[in-house]
Amino acid sequence: MQDAIQDHYSDDLAWCYGCGRRNEQGHHFRTKWNGNNTVTEFEPKSEHMAVPGFVYGGVIASLIDCHSSGSCSIGLLHKQGFQIEPGIEPPRFVAALLNVKFVQPTPQGCLLKAVGELHEVHPKRWRVTTQVFAGDVVCATGEFEGVVMPKTFSEKA
Amino acid sequence: MQDAIQDHYSDDLAWCYGCGRRNEQGHHFRTKWNGNNTVTEFEPKSEHMAVPGFVYGGVIASLIDCHSSGSCSIGLLHKQGFQIEPGIEPPRFVAALLNVKFVQPTPQGCLLKAVGELHEVHPKRWRVTTQVFAGDVVCATGEFEGVVMPKTFSEKA
Repeated sequence: MQDAIQDHYSDDLAWCYGCGRRNEQGHHFRTKWNGNNTVTEFEPKSEHMAVPGFVYGGVIASLIDCHSSGSCSIGLLHKQGFQIEPGIEPPRFVAALLNVKFVQPTPQGCLLKAVGELHEVHPKRWRVTTQVFAGDVVCATGEFEGVVMPKTFSEKA
Repeated sequence: MQDAIQDHYSDDLAWCYGCGRRNEQGHHFRTKWNGNNTVTEFEPKSEHMAVPGFVYGGVIASLIDCHSSGSCSIGLLHKQGFQIEPGIEPPRFVAALLNVKFVQPTPQGCLLKAVGELHEVHPKRWRVTTQVFAGDVVCATGEFEGVVMPKTFSEKA
């Protein structure tokens, strides 16, 4: 089983409600590299609804947010010559902007798959464009820009 | 205490993870009208963090999502000649797009206040622009477009 980028975030920065492995109440989004794209799979819980039968947009936005932030980490990690591997702590990013288009109502009870493309804007700012699939159907698209996490974030930890 | 628009959503459509009063696991965002703007106040829980000390962007996006959807409902309700009042079921909206700019890291342990401006794009499509304050500081801004909820949504309920 391939590791996700979030598996190797440093312990003191692994508390994110979206993707932190140490946050017991969180969503535990996990983002992997498939050789061409970044991929985050997630099955929303029954309570993650907008109305019965359809997934809540805020959870879809959250999925795109952490998927994209993790994608930026993967991109910069690769640029630095590393893979997702034990003992290599990935660079971290924070969101500057997150744009979501809701293309179709997203059905509940499906595995969702966010597939991302990486674009380096400049060395400390990366863009990710994402499609969120339910089966073969694109239910939402996302555009995200992340910047390398300032040191002040981890000093707060 | 003034009612929120979500207090009067119909029972079968009051399950939203963001703002549904019947969703026990949800955030329970509540959106009111102050005479000029729509206002949603929310204090994130301790687990709603990005890294320790700062609020998770996906929760901020969720706040803007439900605040804006509720704002659209308030706008159309007012246009129909009603106020937020018992016995008047508000029109419902779904998100078409949600754009968030993260202007400043959002500190934990503060009440957040989303303040929205309403713009009618056409009778069934409304836009909301939002500022999210922590104290006097704008931490995020949002742009949202919502469309009147199709009947297919409630038939699913």
